[in-house]
Amino acid sequence: MKYFNSEKITYKSIDERRQGERAFHWYDPDRIVLGKTMREQLKFAASYWHTFVAESADMFGTGVLNKSFGGTDPIEIYKNKADAAAEFMNVVDLDYYCFHDRDIAPEGKTLADTNRNLDELSDYLGGVMAKNGKKLLWGTANLFNNPRYMHGAGTAPSADVFAFAAAQVKKALEVTVKLGGNGYVFWGGREGYETLLNTDMALEQENMARLLSMAVEYGRKIGFKGDFYIEPKPKEPTKHQYDFDAATVIGFLRKYDLLKDFKLNIEANHATLAGHTFRHELATARVNGVFGSIDANQGDMLLGWDTDEFPFDVYEATLCMLEVIKAGGFTNGGLNFDAKIRRGSCSLDDMIDGYILGMDTFAHGLLAAAKIVEDGELDAFISDRYASWNTGIGKKIRDGAATMEELSEYALMRGDVLSTVRSGRQEYLEHVVNDKIYECK
Amino acid sequence: MKYFNSEKITYKSIDERRQGERAFHWYDPDRIVLGKTMREQLKFAASYWHTFVAESADMFGTGVLNKSFGGTDPIEIYKNKADAAAEFMNVVDLDYYCFHDRDIAPEGKTLADTNRNLDELSDYLGGVMAKNGKKLLWGTANLFNNPRYMHGAGTAPSADVFAFAAAQVKKALEVTVKLGGNGYVFWGGREGYETLLNTDMALEQENMARLLSMAVEYGRKIGFKGDFYIEPKPKEPTKHQYDFDAATVIGFLRKYDLLKDFKLNIEANHATLAGHTFRHELATARVNGVFGSIDANQGDMLLGWDTDEFPFDVYEATLCMLEVIKAGGFTNGGLNFDAKIRRGSCSLDDMIDGYILGMDTFAHGLLAAAKIVEDGELDAFISDRYASWNTGIGKKIRDGAATMEELSEYALMRGDVLSTVRSGRQEYLEHVVNDKIYECK
Amino acid sequence: MKYFNSEKITYKSIDERRQGERAFHWYDPDRIVLGKTMREQLKFAASYWHTFVAESADMFGTGVLNKSFGGTDPIEIYKNKADAAAEFMNVVDLDYYCFHDRDIAPEGKTLADTNRNLDELSDYLGGVMAKNGKKLLWGTANLFNNPRYMHGAGTAPSADVFAFAAAQVKKALEVTVKLGGNGYVFWGGREGYETLLNTDMALEQENMARLLSMAVEYGRKIGFKGDFYIEPKPKEPTKHQYDFDAATVIGFLRKYDLLKDFKLNIEANHATLAGHTFRHELATARVNGVFGSIDANQGDMLLGWDTDEFPFDVYEATLCMLEVIKAGGFTNGGLNFDAKIRRGSCSLDDMIDGYILGMDTFAHGLLAAAKIVEDGELDAFISDRYASWNTGIGKKIRDGAATMEELSEYALMRGDVLSTVRSGRQEYLEHVVNDKIYECK
Amino acid sequence: MKYFNSEKITYKSIDERRQGERAFHWYDPDRIVLGKTMREQLKFAASYWHTFVAESADMFGTGVLNKSFGGTDPIEIYKNKADAAAEFMNVVDLDYYCFHDRDIAPEGKTLADTNRNLDELSDYLGGVMAKNGKKLLWGTANLFNNPRYMHGAGTAPSADVFAFAAAQVKKALEVTVKLGGNGYVFWGGREGYETLLNTDMALEQENMARLLSMAVEYGRKIGFKGDFYIEPKPKEPTKHQYDFDAATVIGFLRKYDLLKDFKLNIEANHATLAGHTFRHELATARVNGVFGSIDANQGDMLLGWDTDEFPFDVYEATLCMLEVIKAGGFTNGGLNFDAKIRRGSCSLDDMIDGYILGMDTFAHGLLAAAKIVEDGELDAFISDRYASWNTGIGKKIRDGAATMEELSEYALMRGDVLSTVRSGRQEYLEHVVNDKIYECK
Repeated sequence: MKYFNSEKITYKSIDERRQGERAFHWYDPDRIVLGKTMREQLKFAASYWHTFVAESADMFGTGVLNKSFGGTDPIEIYKNKADAAAEFMNVVDLDYYCFHDRDIAPEGKTLADTNRNLDELSDYLGGVMAKNGKKLLWGTANLFNNPRYMHGAGTAPSADVFAFAAAQVKKALEVTVKLGGNGYVFWGGREGYETLLNTDMALEQENMARLLSMAVEYGRKIGFKGDFYIEPKPKEPTKHQYDFDAATVIGFLRKYDLLKDFKLNIEANHATLAGHTFRHELATARVNGVFGSIDANQGDMLLGWDTDEFPFDVYEATLCMLEVIKAGGFTNGGLNFDAKIRRGSCSLDDMIDGYILGMDTFAHGLLAAAKIVEDGELDAFISDRYASWNTGIGKKIRDGAATMEELSEYALMRGDVLSTVRSGRQEYLEHVVNDKIYECK
Repeated sequence: MKYFNSEKITYKSIDERRQGERAFHWYDPDRIVLGKTMREQLKFAASYWHTFVAESADMFGTGVLNKSFGGTDPIEIYKNKADAAAEFMNVVDLDYYCFHDRDIAPEGKTLADTNRNLDELSDYLGGVMAKNGKKLLWGTANLFNNPRYMHGAGTAPSADVFAFAAAQVKKALEVTVKLGGNGYVFWGGREGYETLLNTDMALEQENMARLLSMAVEYGRKIGFKGDFYIEPKPKEPTKHQYDFDAATVIGFLRKYDLLKDFKLNIEANHATLAGHTFRHELATARVNGVFGSIDANQGDMLLGWDTDEFPFDVYEATLCMLEVIKAGGFTNGGLNFDAKIRRGSCSLDDMIDGYILGMDTFAHGLLAAAKIVEDGELDAFISDRYASWNTGIGKKIRDGAATMEELSEYALMRGDVLSTVRSGRQEYLEHVVNDKIYECK
Repeated sequence: MKYFNSEKITYKSIDERRQGERAFHWYDPDRIVLGKTMREQLKFAASYWHTFVAESADMFGTGVLNKSFGGTDPIEIYKNKADAAAEFMNVVDLDYYCFHDRDIAPEGKTLADTNRNLDELSDYLGGVMAKNGKKLLWGTANLFNNPRYMHGAGTAPSADVFAFAAAQVKKALEVTVKLGGNGYVFWGGREGYETLLNTDMALEQENMARLLSMAVEYGRKIGFKGDFYIEPKPKEPTKHQYDFDAATVIGFLRKYDLLKDFKLNIEANHATLAGHTFRHELATARVNGVFGSIDANQGDMLLGWDTDEFPFDVYEATLCMLEVIKAGGFTNGGLNFDAKIRRGSCSLDDMIDGYILGMDTFAHGLLAAAKIVEDGELDAFISDRYASWNTGIGKKIRDGAATMEELSEYALMRGDVLSTVRSGRQEYLEHVVNDKIYECK
Repeated sequence: MKYFNSEKITYKSIDERRQGERAFHWYDPDRIVLGKTMREQLKFAASYWHTFVAESADMFGTGVLNKSFGGTDPIEIYKNKADAAAEFMNVVDLDYYCFHDRDIAPEGKTLADTNRNLDELSDYLGGVMAKNGKKLLWGTANLFNNPRYMHGAGTAPSADVFAFAAAQVKKALEVTVKLGGNGYVFWGGREGYETLLNTDMALEQENMARLLSMAVEYGRKIGFKGDFYIEPKPKEPTKHQYDFDAATVIGFLRKYDLLKDFKLNIEANHATLAGHTFRHELATARVNGVFGSIDANQGDMLLGWDTDEFPFDVYEATLCMLEVIKAGGFTNGGLNFDAKIRRGSCSLDDMIDGYILGMDTFAHGLLAAAKIVEDGELDAFISDRYASWNTGIGKKIRDGAATMEELSEYALMRGDVLSTVRSGRQEYLEHVVNDKIYECK
């Protein structure tokens, strides 16, 4: 290996574990779970930005990693990144990757220069990935880093900035299609406001909808058949981001008639920043028919910013995979690790440990979720709990055939209804979930 | 006075203030602001539950106030509450009140008994209020206190409980209409879940929509011409409440085609529990055309539950009133003080101080907001900031006449767009707002 | 069984689990872990208040459980509580219990009456518990529920209230000693402030220290040989509680020379309300030599109040037990389940499920922590990481023999020190912890 | 003016305000308040890092300001910063400044080079400031930005890193003394941990205490007569910072016998990140005799990171200045604006608006606090509330002459104590505070 000090990581039973050894103890790619291989069920992806670009700076300190991968001039650096990416994906056995346009090619002096860089380097990246059998899960445009987007891109006060953003999305869509991506993400890190004192919220949201509509129109025109995704996040870097959470985004998509083409890319850490559990956001997407893809990571519940940690919480991963299974599994989406090693993990090799940790966590979660589904006790509990809605007055209500007058009559006649209220048995069900997690082998 | 040790509170200039004296220093009911009296602009209301029912218990301590107002049997107690309410409203010069069905009459052994109590006591209350010239701002049904609703009312797993809730809403609507109320509120304190392990979220939300639809149908049938309101709150007592925030509720109303009849009742403390500013929730309602009414209070930003404090923050009140003015002022809605005195304020007379505090805060906020509007600098700043959307490429985009290809051409030709990005001047604008608050007299 | 529908819960291997069956899958009381039985290592206790007193009311709803246990007059009710407590503890195999004075006997009209009730009922309780082989882990006085304590007990503005509180503590100490308790807890739910506008913080804290000093003096005098504990909590019901967190309490104890007699009773949910992990609070207590006892529960990290849930998080329980082991295990303390079933768990039998859940979670945590200790890899990593402090300049610094001048000379000579900075390997270590948890059988 | 487009900002009555004009409406430097000029009471300082160094990058975007001030080589840039600093301080009429060593001079290749840069540039800075009559409020060392400190400086696992940090502190102390500073701050942004899995918390805290002791010894030796300060902050960039809040730091200083030389530098935004009000932290410092200096800014209560906004909240500023007055005013400390303009405020001139906003906010706060003190009603309320502690049983308790037995006798005899509990009148007091704020002219 050239850039990373590791052979390919493989599965090894937890009972055979030795101190210091790198191995998956849960991710066994060819193991069959619910009729498909773990590889197919999980569709793990590398996030290009965290893994091959960002160098672990934070707001109070400079970078501690060097990710030029031996390159000196910009083009060489980005080619080496592509090579390193393929090598790393081979080491940790990842099939997919995700990128922003600016992750894979540097900005030039003009937009034309930048586009040329992107053409050259996406060709190079495509070649490297194809040779290694790696696939693009989704692409996106970075509409937040450059100062021109300080007040927004699709929601910029300046129409010229909007036009620039549209041009960038157009190009990013073309590159995504060229590299065979079946997903295209909008994450609106600057699409929100710092203060309402200077903001026209109505106009900004209308303009955002216009950008999304144009992207759909153009994408379909150039042959993009995959899913458009919106990735909700409530705040950071803006004080308020319009795509606050799943429910907000769904309402927006419905208002602007975009539900046909858009699904959601749900991120664990964004869910918790919005005051929701990861599962809640996934379930909200699922019951509204817009479950799409996942940015897998974990936040620190005591810290108020997006920490993007590699996930180690098997409980949350289990509930996540339970929702994925209920949604019918991934179609165009997958599990992208939008996660970074802590700044104190100051070696590139720590990234290998990060991915092992994250992949094992979700592999275990998949196994536990499958056990829950196969066991059937939780589903049966819910069916039974709502059984009154399948007959009698319940059915009539669901059929839209009951009126308030009739229900009032019914209630006056029915007498005590407290006797129909049964325990939710939360503590028992939580014990069942733990049992399923720890039954896994 | 019989129940409260105070004469009617009146306005007195702040410069004439004397220690210990009770007076409004901002609320001057007949003062004209933006063409209407302060009384008309603010439409202050008393919350029946906090003011005449709740006795300042908390999760770790029993009540410290006695609100039987000299009554001994239940009916007498509730009649005395009505008398005390009118007296209190006269003391602090309030025109409106709001109630839950169970605030104004006790539950009986059966629903029929309860309804009889409600008939008798709402007649009594109506009489007292009419005599004192007081009006009902809105009514609602308490669908959260009784154990039968422990798992929800409109979202109950038991269809019988749903029927009971519908019966209760029917009656509450009738009482609201009888007492001349122009608003009817749904606050779904139990309409959510404790854990998804035992919850059918899709069914529960559909059922909720059914209850709302029936209420609209029945309300219109019996002559209710006012607004239905949903009052968003994210959590507490449930872990997750479906009506999380304004954006979520608007999405729900649109999905179930209820936008025609429903508006929002925005509460300051609920906004902040959901991670939003009070103004954000009001603005979200306004730009979606569903601004309705306000539950005025203030949360403690360092505490994670609904503290329902009397508001003293003039800054927030100013931003609130600015949104009310932008929304065209109140029609059916008003400012209801869903606020309670702290448990350590162990005298009924402390409630007088609470209302003075809250009313002065909003009166000052109204004056400051009016100054901002009349001054025009903030509005001009925003108009100017978005001016590029009124001509040229901006106008074309808004008109839906631009494509991505065209915008890409434009951006390639246009060159540097950073020069079109101007400072948001947040610090300057914040200084202006403070100036406007402190210019008031 | 008389009050609960269950035989004694016993251990059963997780692989033999059957749907709907109640069994421990991890807690196997006689299993030896690190040289002691699980029973001895864990010292589980029932919280009298949540388990035998509180009836699942919340701020928006009345109680849903009936805990009079068939009694009608107050004395009978409390005797039945004692019987039910013993039965319940037998069912879930608990050895210890904890109480407030007011949990085990009702208040009378006067303090003298109350004390008589307490005498009678503590005799009764002592008899029942002795007969069943149950022990008192710790006692405490409820200085927060009664309105007299609305502004504090040890920190009351009224010296008479302070005197009353002291009298109550005196009696509670006597009862604790009589029942053989080896711990006495102070939880200061009202010892703090709502607003600094009316508070003399300095005087209040001095008075609190006086109360604690008197309690020590009196306790030792009547033969109490156990530990006094302070239980930190940051807020709720007060806006600010003086015993905010472990570090604050330790500073207070040191300031007022109380470190000799006091240790800490750490509660998981209080830790997180203060912005800390459970482990952080335990570690802070341990490294300051004041680790005492534990209130085992779990908060909801997305809710801002003390939810007191039965713990299901094995990860946190593992880190907790790791700290307990590092502290040398429990001496006078133990694991008290300061936890309550959710309001929707509306059957007394749900409490059995709650305790099974909590006990299994900590039993598993103990096994995992033992594996971590026996494996040694984590400890070795830390030793190695700080090895530079055992020799050379590091040792000199620790020995207090280095000056700034010398260190400056050293640094100027030493050159690049970045090379001495090694990766913290957080992701690798997190994988190790998961391995240890899932290796358990 | 050379670097900023503004003449010196002066006071102008709010009634004479004109749109777009830059003026103080509250800060009138020579106005006498409580016997001193506002200038003397407030002692405003510029933060060198935010104002003359940082270029408004955030975690998702690059810098938008250019602060090379026309310089090209590093030394020239830093000299120009010094010139620009003096000009800016003249424009907004600031007397004091604060810096980190690395703000005023760039790092060189070796520590020796760096020290030479610091010698040269601190001489230059000193000259410029002296010429303009500006004074150093405090200095500090940046022990967080460089990768060598990724795991801590005084708490580094590597003894060599500790030595390097000590060398840096030594030099920063020398520069502070040379420039006449009367304060030296420790802010431990990296002095904490990311995970306890790899951390020896006890050793790290002992080492931190050793560094502080050495600094005191060396500082006093070279003639530093001012105050050492610790600046508490709970988290960010680390997950947990040892100097969590005022109470924690005071406990630490007491434990390691450092209270004689150290005071606290309290920052508003750090207070709220720790779950406290700004006033709480100030009061905690005051009642423990360690009130020192203030980092004036404002956090966004809905965002979980250190936003360092220019303060516009006059209410909080009033409570702050009330504490400052109660503490006897500033001695060596002052009000340093550790505040930055929002990223969208993309012009250097926005900094002028930021300082005007912040200075006016605190000037108004000072006037309101003075009114509260002069009016005397709040102080009288508190004295009266605790009056029972000055006589009888209260005095006996305070004198340490009461025992539990005696208090029990007293309580049994005394009977009902609820009658001694009076309302805390929070709502009334909050109205008084608002009155005082809005009475100001």
